[in-house]
Amino acid sequence: MKKEMQKYLEKAEVLIEALPYIQRFNRKIIVVKYGGSAMVDEKLKEQVIKDVALLKLVGFKPIIVHGGGKEISKWVGKVGMEPEFKNGLRVTDEATMELVEMVLGKVNKSLVQLIEGLGVHGIGISGKDGGLLKVDKKLADGEDIGFVGEVTKVNTQILEDLIEKDFLPVICPIGMDDQFNTYNINADDAACVIAKAMKAEKLAFLTDIEGVYKDPKDPKTLISELRVEEAKKLMEDGYIGGGMLPKLNNCIDAIESGVSRVHILDGRIPHCLLLEIFTNKGIGTAILHGEEPKYYQGE
Amino acid sequence: MKKEMQKYLEKAEVLIEALPYIQRFNRKIIVVKYGGSAMVDEKLKEQVIKDVALLKLVGFKPIIVHGGGKEISKWVGKVGMEPEFKNGLRVTDEATMELVEMVLGKVNKSLVQLIEGLGVHGIGISGKDGGLLKVDKKLADGEDIGFVGEVTKVNTQILEDLIEKDFLPVICPIGMDDQFNTYNINADDAACVIAKAMKAEKLAFLTDIEGVYKDPKDPKTLISELRVEEAKKLMEDGYIGGGMLPKLNNCIDAIESGVSRVHILDGRIPHCLLLEIFTNKGIGTAILHGEEPKYYQGE
Amino acid sequence: MKKEMQKYLEKAEVLIEALPYIQRFNRKIIVVKYGGSAMVDEKLKEQVIKDVALLKLVGFKPIIVHGGGKEISKWVGKVGMEPEFKNGLRVTDEATMELVEMVLGKVNKSLVQLIEGLGVHGIGISGKDGGLLKVDKKLADGEDIGFVGEVTKVNTQILEDLIEKDFLPVICPIGMDDQFNTYNINADDAACVIAKAMKAEKLAFLTDIEGVYKDPKDPKTLISELRVEEAKKLMEDGYIGGGMLPKLNNCIDAIESGVSRVHILDGRIPHCLLLEIFTNKGIGTAILHGEEPKYYQGE
Amino acid sequence: MKKEMQKYLEKAEVLIEALPYIQRFNRKIIVVKYGGSAMVDEKLKEQVIKDVALLKLVGFKPIIVHGGGKEISKWVGKVGMEPEFKNGLRVTDEATMELVEMVLGKVNKSLVQLIEGLGVHGIGISGKDGGLLKVDKKLADGEDIGFVGEVTKVNTQILEDLIEKDFLPVICPIGMDDQFNTYNINADDAACVIAKAMKAEKLAFLTDIEGVYKDPKDPKTLISELRVEEAKKLMEDGYIGGGMLPKLNNCIDAIESGVSRVHILDGRIPHCLLLEIFTNKGIGTAILHGEEPKYYQGE
Amino acid sequence: MKKEMQKYLEKAEVLIEALPYIQRFNRKIIVVKYGGSAMVDEKLKEQVIKDVALLKLVGFKPIIVHGGGKEISKWVGKVGMEPEFKNGLRVTDEATMELVEMVLGKVNKSLVQLIEGLGVHGIGISGKDGGLLKVDKKLADGEDIGFVGEVTKVNTQILEDLIEKDFLPVICPIGMDDQFNTYNINADDAACVIAKAMKAEKLAFLTDIEGVYKDPKDPKTLISELRVEEAKKLMEDGYIGGGMLPKLNNCIDAIESGVSRVHILDGRIPHCLLLEIFTNKGIGTAILHGEEPKYYQGE
Amino acid sequence: MKKEMQKYLEKAEVLIEALPYIQRFNRKIIVVKYGGSAMVDEKLKEQVIKDVALLKLVGFKPIIVHGGGKEISKWVGKVGMEPEFKNGLRVTDEATMELVEMVLGKVNKSLVQLIEGLGVHGIGISGKDGGLLKVDKKLADGEDIGFVGEVTKVNTQILEDLIEKDFLPVICPIGMDDQFNTYNINADDAACVIAKAMKAEKLAFLTDIEGVYKDPKDPKTLISELRVEEAKKLMEDGYIGGGMLPKLNNCIDAIESGVSRVHILDGRIPHCLLLEIFTNKGIGTAILHGEEPKYYQGE
Repeated sequence: MKKEMQKYLEKAEVLIEALPYIQRFNRKIIVVKYGGSAMVDEKLKEQVIKDVALLKLVGFKPIIVHGGGKEISKWVGKVGMEPEFKNGLRVTDEATMELVEMVLGKVNKSLVQLIEGLGVHGIGISGKDGGLLKVDKKLADGEDIGFVGEVTKVNTQILEDLIEKDFLPVICPIGMDDQFNTYNINADDAACVIAKAMKAEKLAFLTDIEGVYKDPKDPKTLISELRVEEAKKLMEDGYIGGGMLPKLNNCIDAIESGVSRVHILDGRIPHCLLLEIFTNKGIGTAILHGEEPKYYQGE
Repeated sequence: MKKEMQKYLEKAEVLIEALPYIQRFNRKIIVVKYGGSAMVDEKLKEQVIKDVALLKLVGFKPIIVHGGGKEISKWVGKVGMEPEFKNGLRVTDEATMELVEMVLGKVNKSLVQLIEGLGVHGIGISGKDGGLLKVDKKLADGEDIGFVGEVTKVNTQILEDLIEKDFLPVICPIGMDDQFNTYNINADDAACVIAKAMKAEKLAFLTDIEGVYKDPKDPKTLISELRVEEAKKLMEDGYIGGGMLPKLNNCIDAIESGVSRVHILDGRIPHCLLLEIFTNKGIGTAILHGEEPKYYQGE
Repeated sequence: MKKEMQKYLEKAEVLIEALPYIQRFNRKIIVVKYGGSAMVDEKLKEQVIKDVALLKLVGFKPIIVHGGGKEISKWVGKVGMEPEFKNGLRVTDEATMELVEMVLGKVNKSLVQLIEGLGVHGIGISGKDGGLLKVDKKLADGEDIGFVGEVTKVNTQILEDLIEKDFLPVICPIGMDDQFNTYNINADDAACVIAKAMKAEKLAFLTDIEGVYKDPKDPKTLISELRVEEAKKLMEDGYIGGGMLPKLNNCIDAIESGVSRVHILDGRIPHCLLLEIFTNKGIGTAILHGEEPKYYQGE
Repeated sequence: MKKEMQKYLEKAEVLIEALPYIQRFNRKIIVVKYGGSAMVDEKLKEQVIKDVALLKLVGFKPIIVHGGGKEISKWVGKVGMEPEFKNGLRVTDEATMELVEMVLGKVNKSLVQLIEGLGVHGIGISGKDGGLLKVDKKLADGEDIGFVGEVTKVNTQILEDLIEKDFLPVICPIGMDDQFNTYNINADDAACVIAKAMKAEKLAFLTDIEGVYKDPKDPKTLISELRVEEAKKLMEDGYIGGGMLPKLNNCIDAIESGVSRVHILDGRIPHCLLLEIFTNKGIGTAILHGEEPKYYQGE
Repeated sequence: MKKEMQKYLEKAEVLIEALPYIQRFNRKIIVVKYGGSAMVDEKLKEQVIKDVALLKLVGFKPIIVHGGGKEISKWVGKVGMEPEFKNGLRVTDEATMELVEMVLGKVNKSLVQLIEGLGVHGIGISGKDGGLLKVDKKLADGEDIGFVGEVTKVNTQILEDLIEKDFLPVICPIGMDDQFNTYNINADDAACVIAKAMKAEKLAFLTDIEGVYKDPKDPKTLISELRVEEAKKLMEDGYIGGGMLPKLNNCIDAIESGVSRVHILDGRIPHCLLLEIFTNKGIGTAILHGEEPKYYQGE
Repeated sequence: MKKEMQKYLEKAEVLIEALPYIQRFNRKIIVVKYGGSAMVDEKLKEQVIKDVALLKLVGFKPIIVHGGGKEISKWVGKVGMEPEFKNGLRVTDEATMELVEMVLGKVNKSLVQLIEGLGVHGIGISGKDGGLLKVDKKLADGEDIGFVGEVTKVNTQILEDLIEKDFLPVICPIGMDDQFNTYNINADDAACVIAKAMKAEKLAFLTDIEGVYKDPKDPKTLISELRVEEAKKLMEDGYIGGGMLPKLNNCIDAIESGVSRVHILDGRIPHCLLLEIFTNKGIGTAILHGEEPKYYQGE
């Protein structure tokens, strides 16, 4: 009995430990870019959604921006289309775009479904709804690769309205150009511009890596805190490459536009979001300003 | 010049004619079931959306509920699935359901796209968002035909929130059961339960027929106004059959639950909605109470 | 039957044509200076009020400022007073002022009556109510002509309150000085200062002329669009004279204070307001900025 | 110096004495029927308006309903019309009605003028504005006496809106019938129906008499408090006659419809309203329920 | 490293476990009667306040009602007063009442101090503020024991206002009678009437015992769930005595007035409140209805 | 009878006289520092509270800041503590601070009690509640005199919330430092910083002197209006000394921070507050700007 009670007290302590974090981020906006493995594994998927739902319930204002990469490839095959890439970017003709929108829509509603199952009200929208994401065509090294867009304007009204009405918005990264044509948007980019436009406190990327490494081949060189200047230097010095390059540029852009902290989290670790936010345990890499504001000292 | 001016004056007269109708339905909810040919023909599609956008702009509160029939069949073929029917109802296994949701989602966003193109803010949701539509499994003559649902509860909160925030909601008829599984819902049924739950003033079905006939073979027997009692009698007497039967039952149900008027409109006529609402020209068949309230006298 | 249907479709097209205009001016304030023949002819009067009521119903925020010229003269005669003019301006002694206020009050309520008859809620006020119009005595070429005032302050609170509460304000141009004495105000001036103070989108003068002419004797020289600079030049070059001079000065003043467009409309044309606002047909003369903002391109 | 101080302390005591009365009627509606001598004498007029303005400033919600009797007669003469009476009621043909509206409008704005002069925002409306007073034609002993109306409906919305926005409404007793024709209404009747519809706490009639007498010839028989039952008995027993009869009927009607107290005050006494409300001195006659509610005991 | 990660995952699980509880009580009012040992031990005091602050931060609406027993006795001695008891109740003369109010006031502000130290805004009031608690004199077996009051009315307005403005109210159990004299109120009674008046979801008593025993001498007979009927029977059968009797009566009264659950918690266990609310571990005794509503099944 | 009526008319005149003052300060904040004799004499106490309650009822927004000097000394003796002073300032160790807080708390609630007795809702708070007053330790000529604080921040939120909800706030001058320790604050200082932070229109000090004298020994040299520049000169020239020096510095500070007028009133004169505010009689000394704004001319 004593031992059982001990266990319960430990539980209480965990909750109490969360108190300063809950307080600090109360009513703050947190944009979660949700993608990669964490979207494929059903168990991880459920855990991510539980984390976000908890954030919502304790007073945060989370926004989910999701991708759908592997699911898209699966369907491209299913309908017998030939995927085409140029400089590593998917060429998106009209038929592909149509399919991409269908698949992302399905993923979008499946997340809403999980959220509703937890008793929180979610609403799944794309960048078309309420004119959320306006885009221009994005070229890949000067070449037209179809309906791939770069966000030029975020109409935050719809997000503000939905959040005011207590919904958890789930966004799929599709937008429209001035002629109201449909475009695919890189999910990382979408999360970044939304975080900036909504003046988010935090932006968290759920990825398939542990974080930023000084030497990607040496897991011991994982960096847990990275100042913007250091990040820039790492890039200049050629330490960062591959898919991490644009991601890190997004991170720096977000920080310089007013987001307080950006996190590159390992989405394969269960509840990585909660651990990052409610405990002192730093998961992955946190990108932050050169001069951290005072109120972070206690962290 | 005189003649030109005459033309303009006639235009002004048309607008002025609309005045009492705008006034009467100001801030009233109108549910539009959008389906059939009006969804296939791109020109008709644009006209329907223009009509609804105009209703929105002049102070009405329209809600669109749409189907996606032909598009679904097209995609079922595209991915090489074998459609299966039982008693005329599509058997909806998990794979079919997944595809149906994808296609309806695509249709949904394409309508939002047209609405946004007209400068009105639309938002496309399914019955999953905000827990809008709760369903039980629907049997066809006692037989399980898969994920086909019957609405048991409409959670109107999300619609009230979106309308308050001045969005035009576009709804695709998909819902969840108590275990948060996905179900397909007949679009007519969905439109009817939503109209009832939202205490709509009007419910309009855009169909591929001219209206209700006493004798379907004789176009001269088109009925322009049908009292609820007459409708019931027609059904008892066996005059009504086929797809019209459930539709008429929906109409009667809506009227008896407080909707003032239900319209079966010919969606193949351009702007049939505007004509019905803003002019004295009765298009199709209007179902109404036995005793019409006084304020309809002027119509 | 076909022909009848054709007629109805044309009606629908007229309504649809209005869509972009309704959208553009939605929730915008439009000040209508109502005077001249359009006030004498009962049929025209009814048409003007119908136009304004329609503007109100489709989401605009119209404000009527009216005069009462001919009716005043009629009553001055009726009670056996001798009208006296100095430099073309009516000398307004206390007795005249009393009568003017009575007549304008009567006209004011008769407009409210018509508005209420259309199911819109009007409220008739003068510049005294809520301290709307504060004036100083206006001299005519240095001479005292009695209780004729020049507006020094517009207390917009009452108008904002009434518009927020969904009333259509009808204003008669009477104000008070610092000692709370009653003054008559030129209705054109009153409309202009109110449009400026309310940051109106449009200001429309219903007049008894077709618009501004380069050569008033030649009807073919009617100007349909007049840039502020052109207007100033026309005045400098002596093309503009008579009653048009102060009116045009008012127009320029309004434009330079932020009103987007001022219209000099021919109030003798039925529904000239609707035609101006909802169609591409330019009625009369529109005064506008040198550089038209981009969103007017479609007009 | 001592004496002066004494005088000031007495002033303070008067203000403190008012405290419980201010508290009791805080945010309560008080309808003041303003007519008779108090409207003719300029000094009395100013005092009445000061009283009402003070009521407004200390938190009450006063509404003024005014007549214009003597002024109307003056103008009927001025324009050379022949007044005609039937059974003591003015026959009101169209021309008379027009003049009555003009005169009442003038009186209405002159009250607003005084109110504004005291720094309180007044707004002068008639029963036409916002559709405030709907009437039916009133016959005098079965005879048509023209545009004399009996109120059938009070649309309180406009009053609630104006009071919410902190205006002091000044109402002239003119209404419209179903065809939106103009009708004159007895000011006492108008004050009574408005007090009832607005659920006023008090209704006060400023009259030219001291109050209700048991024997009108004997000033010593002035009744200061009259229960509804006593009032009915006095009328049955024939003690009450002349203009007092309909007034007393109005009082009883108001009390029985929920107004707490009706006062017949002597408008010739300066500040009779303040004296009645802020001191224990009963001026004139108070009509009240058979059983006075407890909280009046201290009065 | 693995082990450390395991520890963190366990932490995350604890937070996730809390999710359904946070959801269930979101925006619900919880009244916490805070007294006994938990008020004396500084460490326990801090833990209780942390618990309540956490409840506030995650969306609950807690209200603290506190006593001050031991501190009062200490001060009675300090100022050299002789405590007097009648039938076990403190005789409260004016001097004692003055001291009691001072001590309770001090305790009250010390709780606010702790709350503010956690970044939550507290506000310390007594039943005098905003007229919160109206009392009548309470007799002890018919004998006057001074300024000891029984609550006759709870004016919830002040609590609703403070909660709406996001304050955590801390209440000391002092009230006023009709003559605005000061009275001491039993803190258990105060908590109970406040819970009832505020329609609280839960009422929790922090006590110095483990809960309700069938046989107080046998710790093994601790009852963890007690239906109202069972509680009544226990009392009838004489199993309950001493200070537990009035407490249990309060519990039953609260339940029968609409409070869903009342908890008798052992305030000596750290974080007993959190454990009770966020885990499945039942601490102490829960009093509940005969028929538990369905949504408690999962507990 | 005539004479009695005369008396009543005089009463009415007093009320009417107050009208412009009520109007001028309507919805303005007035901070009243309440201390000295006016707090000791029960009759004066009641009169002060009546004055403030009346201010509240007629639309002002008063805030009371009180001291408790004599009562504190009484209790210091009662519990056998030795008061210690350094440079005329009370040395405040922990035990003293505890007692001071208790006594001020008692005084605080006794004022609320009187306010509630007048039917106005009061709420008694200290600078701890809602984090109202943040302090740093204040040294006396460089020496540590214990828990005596200097306000560094006023968190006005709680006051704005309480005033919005129509409460009359009564504040005792206690605050917390960054470590949430309790500090005593000079009541004059507290009143001054609160007036500044709340942008009060007026700040009134109830004192035990008649006002500021040029020569304190000669009562004829009482100054009724003192411009800021004159006040500074008087201090420079050594005319002002003793307790008046810091008070006058507070006054100047308040005026220079935007308070319109500061009054040093003789709290021993009954209703000095009302006399100052509602009559032309200047009581005590008014400190004001060098250039008085125009709207004070009528005073």
